[in-house]
Amino acid sequence: MNIWFMTSLVILSLYGTFSLDNGLARTPPMGWMAWERFRCNIDCVNDPDNCIGEKLFMQIADHMSTDGFKDVGYEYVAIDDCWMSHQRDSNGKLYGNTTRFPSGIKRLADYVHSKGLKLGIYEDYGKLTCAGYPGSLDHLEVDAQTFADWGVDYLKFDGCYSNPKVMDTGYPQMTKALNKTGIPIVFSCSWPDYQRASGMKPNYTLIGDNCNLWRNFNDIQDSWDSVTSIIDYYAKEHDTLAAAQGPGKWNDPDMVIIGDFGLSYDQSKSQMAMWSIFASPLMMSNDLRSVSDEAKEILLNKEIIAVNQDALGVMGRQVYKTGAMEVWTKPLVNKSFATVFLNRNTNGMPRSISMTLKDMGYNTGVDHYTLRDVYLHKSLGNYGINDQFTATVNPTGVVMVTASISTT
Amino acid sequence: MNIWFMTSLVILSLYGTFSLDNGLARTPPMGWMAWERFRCNIDCVNDPDNCIGEKLFMQIADHMSTDGFKDVGYEYVAIDDCWMSHQRDSNGKLYGNTTRFPSGIKRLADYVHSKGLKLGIYEDYGKLTCAGYPGSLDHLEVDAQTFADWGVDYLKFDGCYSNPKVMDTGYPQMTKALNKTGIPIVFSCSWPDYQRASGMKPNYTLIGDNCNLWRNFNDIQDSWDSVTSIIDYYAKEHDTLAAAQGPGKWNDPDMVIIGDFGLSYDQSKSQMAMWSIFASPLMMSNDLRSVSDEAKEILLNKEIIAVNQDALGVMGRQVYKTGAMEVWTKPLVNKSFATVFLNRNTNGMPRSISMTLKDMGYNTGVDHYTLRDVYLHKSLGNYGINDQFTATVNPTGVVMVTASISTT
Repeated sequence: MNIWFMTSLVILSLYGTFSLDNGLARTPPMGWMAWERFRCNIDCVNDPDNCIGEKLFMQIADHMSTDGFKDVGYEYVAIDDCWMSHQRDSNGKLYGNTTRFPSGIKRLADYVHSKGLKLGIYEDYGKLTCAGYPGSLDHLEVDAQTFADWGVDYLKFDGCYSNPKVMDTGYPQMTKALNKTGIPIVFSCSWPDYQRASGMKPNYTLIGDNCNLWRNFNDIQDSWDSVTSIIDYYAKEHDTLAAAQGPGKWNDPDMVIIGDFGLSYDQSKSQMAMWSIFASPLMMSNDLRSVSDEAKEILLNKEIIAVNQDALGVMGRQVYKTGAMEVWTKPLVNKSFATVFLNRNTNGMPRSISMTLKDMGYNTGVDHYTLRDVYLHKSLGNYGINDQFTATVNPTGVVMVTASISTT
Repeated sequence: MNIWFMTSLVILSLYGTFSLDNGLARTPPMGWMAWERFRCNIDCVNDPDNCIGEKLFMQIADHMSTDGFKDVGYEYVAIDDCWMSHQRDSNGKLYGNTTRFPSGIKRLADYVHSKGLKLGIYEDYGKLTCAGYPGSLDHLEVDAQTFADWGVDYLKFDGCYSNPKVMDTGYPQMTKALNKTGIPIVFSCSWPDYQRASGMKPNYTLIGDNCNLWRNFNDIQDSWDSVTSIIDYYAKEHDTLAAAQGPGKWNDPDMVIIGDFGLSYDQSKSQMAMWSIFASPLMMSNDLRSVSDEAKEILLNKEIIAVNQDALGVMGRQVYKTGAMEVWTKPLVNKSFATVFLNRNTNGMPRSISMTLKDMGYNTGVDHYTLRDVYLHKSLGNYGINDQFTATVNPTGVVMVTASISTT
């Protein structure tokens, strides 16, 4: 019996459980979340089709279940901020805005469940949510129980109107409150992002013990600049973040914006590839009622989703960078790998890069691999570990390959 | 007889002609140019389909003439840098690289002409071109005559390896040399861009007298950031640039990158709309052999091209800016107008803006207009000058309308 296990037992005996024990998110959560695309649009009078209300979430659930998203693993339909009434009820409980959610959140959860999907919801550890709705401060247990009673499956717990210094104790209190309900609810924490933004160094061991996923960096916006700023942050902080991550606990670079207004086709392929190399949650924020066929094809790419959902759950790392060309490799089960060649240039022409598989980071002692282009759905043949592989990559685009042990 | 006319006569008598007299480019030139998309790719061994050589230009001419581009006004197929041999011939004349242009430039011009199109070529006022090929310095007359002999219809005259301070006398020498050939050749000058970059204030009166079009600002790159940086420069320098421009003489914000890798669908619509509001040359730089249907639809939009090609040739101006929403209006013939609502935000949701037609800059004393959405190809009905028009604009996208005098 090692010291860690003994310590755990002591803590366990003192506090009941010392960490999140919901058994969820063994692979990165996949689904849809309202915020990036629909924000705090509460104007159902002038914009009835796009306001934050039950109709939107029901329509999204319909499309997720019928348009192929559910089939490839997208599961959560997640409400973000601005769903609540501005007051708690007479019992101190939260409830949905009655005009926009006339049927109530429980009924919405039932509807989402009837489609074979799961419901996500949003709250905030502070006094208020970011948009000024009631926060959970001093109401952690009642709110956790309310969500459990409604059948909520996923909670995004934001950190506005809160002091990042108290989060190391505050967020675990919510973990405990969620555990206490006995209902498994994926717990998404904004904790480290607020600490980073205030100059603190997040304690990822503690965060990983208490959350299924957590935001590390700025909110994503609908632009390539925003996507690349996140990629750059993950490159810079790789060692810390990779160590924190694994089945049940994930770094979250924020939503997937494919199908929105700001990314080109190539840039959309790049976000999907990089989020999969990171083993990041794939929570789309788009209008599933009208995403283009091009966007849908990227979002439904099973070969790339398989990389994202690989059971090892390892965050890929940047194995090479020169000029504006980056190469990222992620180890997969069975000594397989996935590699993304990302061309950050914007100067017109596709650019070629040649590397040996060894330099691509294929370091498990295997001599020969079969490579496959997961966007072209095409085998690229067999390569020895010291053979050069050449990728020709569009500006702001990617080439993404998987490598499995060669059987020939 | 005013003093300006008398002075002109004096100069005319001294120098033969005092300005470009080719009668060309009465509306902004339209066509295709190799640079942004194909750069100085001279590797025909490894990349035979995309290298700077006659095959590429012939294929582009084929697609321009058969895919609808010629029909809507795209006319010039323009070679950029890297087409030459590194040495002049024994008579001091330029000639095309014999491996990549085995038939010679004259034959290529003949081919392009046979498709009902015109050929553009590239040289540089300095000692060398930007990519290091022979420049025209000390060879202005022989080079002008060579281009004329080949049947070249358009010359982009760059300014690398040259002193911006001598351009006010140097570029007009090339104007004179072109005039002297007797062959009408559109003359595109990089003169003001090099002067701006070196901190000088370009003399746009002189430039307008000597060039059909001229670059003002940095080379465009394949990104939304690059497009918006150009729009911002045109907003800042509007009064100077608008005064310089008119039939036969155009500010050139550089190539249209629609159909390449870096712009989203909405961003592509934005570039097309803004370049048309500016009355800018529409020189595409893309791979016409493989542009998407979406891109083609934007590039072939006749209603927007009509705005670009309007006979007044006036550069539109920014009539309103708040936060990230900009409104630009361009006067057209018959007291008509075109207006672009540009949403510079990247925050998820389309945004609405309401303005009276008067505030949109419709200032010709007309009381009622019929508005039309030129992307939706749809009439929007009649509006009084004090009525509010509301546009709902996607992030990084546009709404573009034209307004004609209402007949009801």
